Amino acid sequence: MNGLSFQITDNCGAARAGTLTINGTEVQTPVFMPVGTNATVKAMTPVQVADTGAKLILANTYHLAMRPGTETVAALGGVKRFNGWPHVMLTDSGGYQVFSLSKMNRITDEGVTFQWPVDGSTHFFSPKIAIDHQHRIGADLIMAFDECMPHDADLSYARTSVARTSRWAKECIDHHNASEYRERQFLGGIVQGGLVRELRLESARDLVGMDFPFYAIGGLSVGEGFERMREVLSYTVAELPAEKPRYLMGVGEPRDIIEAVSQGIDMFDCVMPTRNARNGEAFTFSGTIKIRNAKYASDGLPLEEGCDCYTCRTFSRAYLRHLDHAKEMLFHTLMTTHNLRFMQRFMNAIREAIRGNALVAFSKSFTSGFYKD
Amino acid sequence: MNGLSFQITDNCGAARAGTLTINGTEVQTPVFMPVGTNATVKAMTPVQVADTGAKLILANTYHLAMRPGTETVAALGGVKRFNGWPHVMLTDSGGYQVFSLSKMNRITDEGVTFQWPVDGSTHFFSPKIAIDHQHRIGADLIMAFDECMPHDADLSYARTSVARTSRWAKECIDHHNASEYRERQFLGGIVQGGLVRELRLESARDLVGMDFPFYAIGGLSVGEGFERMREVLSYTVAELPAEKPRYLMGVGEPRDIIEAVSQGIDMFDCVMPTRNARNGEAFTFSGTIKIRNAKYASDGLPLEEGCDCYTCRTFSRAYLRHLDHAKEMLFHTLMTTHNLRFMQRFMNAIREAIRGNALVAFSKSFTSGFYKD
Repeated sequence: MNGLSFQITDNCGAARAGTLTINGTEVQTPVFMPVGTNATVKAMTPVQVADTGAKLILANTYHLAMRPGTETVAALGGVKRFNGWPHVMLTDSGGYQVFSLSKMNRITDEGVTFQWPVDGSTHFFSPKIAIDHQHRIGADLIMAFDECMPHDADLSYARTSVARTSRWAKECIDHHNASEYRERQFLGGIVQGGLVRELRLESARDLVGMDFPFYAIGGLSVGEGFERMREVLSYTVAELPAEKPRYLMGVGEPRDIIEAVSQGIDMFDCVMPTRNARNGEAFTFSGTIKIRNAKYASDGLPLEEGCDCYTCRTFSRAYLRHLDHAKEMLFHTLMTTHNLRFMQRFMNAIREAIRGNALVAFSKSFTSGFYKD
Repeated sequence: MNGLSFQITDNCGAARAGTLTINGTEVQTPVFMPVGTNATVKAMTPVQVADTGAKLILANTYHLAMRPGTETVAALGGVKRFNGWPHVMLTDSGGYQVFSLSKMNRITDEGVTFQWPVDGSTHFFSPKIAIDHQHRIGADLIMAFDECMPHDADLSYARTSVARTSRWAKECIDHHNASEYRERQFLGGIVQGGLVRELRLESARDLVGMDFPFYAIGGLSVGEGFERMREVLSYTVAELPAEKPRYLMGVGEPRDIIEAVSQGIDMFDCVMPTRNARNGEAFTFSGTIKIRNAKYASDGLPLEEGCDCYTCRTFSRAYLRHLDHAKEMLFHTLMTTHNLRFMQRFMNAIREAIRGNALVAFSKSFTSGFYKD
């Protein structure tokens, strides 16, 4: 059962639909991965997450390394035994978090020294250490340790950074391939390079030369805007081998997902559907609903008519607004249930559109409904 | 299907086990009712509550009258359609809350004027109004509006108060019996009288004369202590008709439940199992577990070995402690799931002990395990 394979079944322009088989579990692509930072998708049991149709979820190595510690996760049988997730998981490498969440980090060619803001303790991540953490966590898909350079880095720094990310990627894959974990954990390389075409191409070529089983594009969706993201994808994706899965990290805005799929991306993750749910924003095919609005106070309709999620099958907008108003925790669970199911229905619709060779038409009709305001 | 019937199947001293059939739903007694104040058992979906084995849950009229308003609940099809609860429900009358939660209340023979602390708005509950609220909420079992007098009331005030509660009970049952709701909602009378034997007997006799379909004992578990509660029960229960269900309001401490069952009580409710769960205290037959304790940080055991709840079947103590440590909402859901299932297992064991004519032995063995410290 152990292994990673990717079968592309349909194409529509550069977009593709397929089946990613991860250690025996079939995942239909393009796929959206819910984020479970602390080895829990916030406010949801694993059964509730699985009921939305998700097969592949993400946890953050940085967070688990800080708390409860990856040795603890390993001693308890690995992350899927720890958190009760019945399908497959991916961990990031911690690269993004050591740069974005930590304070006073110091970067050398060996790795990154950083402080954990929660207690001020000092930690060090190197490529080898990040992989060791991920081995102990034990997710099915794991990621190389990369430098996420600042958005405003100058070209000279960016060159240095991309070269370092390539060296680190090599250290990661060599360390991983020399370990017993290679049989059941599959390591993705992360293309960096900011908004600089030359550096993106260099990064992609370096990584492709290392023969990773799948490739991610990092450093996007960090405020560069839709047009720049689109442009970077246009030249970066072309460098990645067609037969391997492609993962656009941190992207989750529906408009961005459609654009990236149309350029050949297969995998996505983002906290947006879950975070916005907790903030009272429900996604529907006819736009978002801010359920705190007083106009829903006695609205007997479900969040979205025709939605098959537990929330829409059982509860009215009025009940959800009541829960929020009364500060009841169930609000977060029911809203998250809906938004995660929405993402599954959205990805289903994208896959259908690819199969029907109708992605452009789907994009227009979806966008005019979802972004109607 | 509409109707209320009570069949006692087994006796053990004064204790009895039976089946309470409420609008077609069979509830085994003695029964513990989880509390869902705002029409939600905190942190739980209705499916999760039902999975613990609960058939009968409670909601608070006071809270629903303040938010979202009982007209809204009625317009949305009643509380069980509003909150998706698949079995049967009870509402209290708001009597306890108008006295305990509100500020600047003014009591007359007509009713109680009080301020809602959340927004300072002024409200008035009378017996008729409390019943109207409960008609609109639409629970299967409803309660008469009573005065919950202060624990330290003098005898003269207590006499006045008990007489008023009896008059209010008569107003409630007359109003209810004159309404169409009598066919599908069943009204319980509440015996008051503090710790005064004479007044408890008077209150019980007054109410029994009004022929309520079931009887509750109020004004206990408010700090009087185990021995006094036991004493009040000993003379009060004897006044209540043997063939009708008896409900001890607000009692949930396992020791108190066993004592009350042994005196002939059939129904209980309490926030303790759910509140303590959220505060990190898990109930087990061998005592309580404070899961925040560092000693559980890498403990791979379930909360309670042999427990069949979702939490114990799926998660370790270490995972639960991790969730609490990381301030994850799932912690509340998983802990509540366990404690509510514990209460069902506890009540099952009590019923088995009654059937086996072994309640005294069960009480000793349970108490020595649960209260071992």
